[in-house]
Amino acid sequence: MHIFYTPDITQNTYTLSEEESKHCVRVLRLSIGSLVNLVDGKGGFYTAEITSDNPKKVRLSVQKVESEFNKRNHYLHIAVAPTKNIDRLEWFLEKATELGIDEITPIITDRSERRVVKEDRLIKVITSAVKQSIKAYHPKLNDAISFDAFLSQSFDGDKLIAHCIDSGSKKYISDLIHPHGKYLVLIGPEGDFTPEEVNEALNKDFKALTLGNNRLRTETAALSACFEINYINR
Amino acid sequence: MHIFYTPDITQNTYTLSEEESKHCVRVLRLSIGSLVNLVDGKGGFYTAEITSDNPKKVRLSVQKVESEFNKRNHYLHIAVAPTKNIDRLEWFLEKATELGIDEITPIITDRSERRVVKEDRLIKVITSAVKQSIKAYHPKLNDAISFDAFLSQSFDGDKLIAHCIDSGSKKYISDLIHPHGKYLVLIGPEGDFTPEEVNEALNKDFKALTLGNNRLRTETAALSACFEINYINR
Repeated sequence: MHIFYTPDITQNTYTLSEEESKHCVRVLRLSIGSLVNLVDGKGGFYTAEITSDNPKKVRLSVQKVESEFNKRNHYLHIAVAPTKNIDRLEWFLEKATELGIDEITPIITDRSERRVVKEDRLIKVITSAVKQSIKAYHPKLNDAISFDAFLSQSFDGDKLIAHCIDSGSKKYISDLIHPHGKYLVLIGPEGDFTPEEVNEALNKDFKALTLGNNRLRTETAALSACFEINYINR
Repeated sequence: MHIFYTPDITQNTYTLSEEESKHCVRVLRLSIGSLVNLVDGKGGFYTAEITSDNPKKVRLSVQKVESEFNKRNHYLHIAVAPTKNIDRLEWFLEKATELGIDEITPIITDRSERRVVKEDRLIKVITSAVKQSIKAYHPKLNDAISFDAFLSQSFDGDKLIAHCIDSGSKKYISDLIHPHGKYLVLIGPEGDFTPEEVNEALNKDFKALTLGNNRLRTETAALSACFEINYINR
């Protein structure tokens, strides 16, 4: 069944935007009586019937509501340095949304080649993955922020940092986190975090993790951490 | 240190191709005395010194050879239906090479929208990931083959198929495979395998796996299987 993202749904009826209405009637060829699914991004999964197929404003009547649809059993926040080639960050956002993530923050680090991101474009990528993979929860994308400003905030839960600097004190994620917990993972840029940035994080009680012996690109490391944490909590 | 892929290296000296020579001298600005790394794709990892920096034929003298460099402790073969958008398959090949894979076969299934792939283009993607992630072993890409012809071959080791058809008999990969073994995993196209294809595989002793409750795209499912098998054998 086709799915629409309707974050502003509040009642038992809903009117699609002009763009979505056109898509619904002209492209999907849906008409009065057809059933569609709606997700509000906050856990609500709706089944609704088309009651008016006006190609400028399709009206829907909600038939069924499920709340906390496929609610996740942990909370994962990944703060990642945007890749020089933005496609790689967009790819990470799509895949992480499919596999399961709750919050993403682009962090601008000392060695970041890319220091500006267009959040609205990235949110579109996430929303499209939310619909494609039928997620009732929409991952939250924060505005890009400098590494220092980000670390000056306080976070609860398990705090981890992935870096490539040789040190004997790295552990696997499975040895660092509490099951069904809240997690924040820092992933550096192509050139890695600086030793100063790593120390700053360690001084704020972040634990150094290893993702294994493979040399991974930034977006692969971020997805790998996302995968491991979902796997451990499965 | 810069790395070159030299599958045809046989002696203690090697001459780079005209293209690689030009790249080495004109782009990387390397000259006589500079050290570079070479990988032969069969486990050999070489350190070599530039003895001639002729931009048409750079000559190298091998200083050090490591064999079975970062040899993997299992053998993973993934047979995946090529995605309609070939970028998605290329993305899978790059990421699987980074994370660890030994063999890939594009399989043309009943519901495959893409029935032709350009293997040479895909091999370039793999080689570039091999160099970027410093792998001494080059994953093998087989020619595309029909699902039926592929299944008519014989395989040893654990044989798995990922499909979306409801059935109570699916298990997690961790409950299906032997550690440090040889594995073959079948991943279907956007529209999934047909019930007939699934039965054909089950009749040939393939076991049905589940990757969890997420609805994953073809390339995400393939990478997810690759990730799980590497994780279990870590």
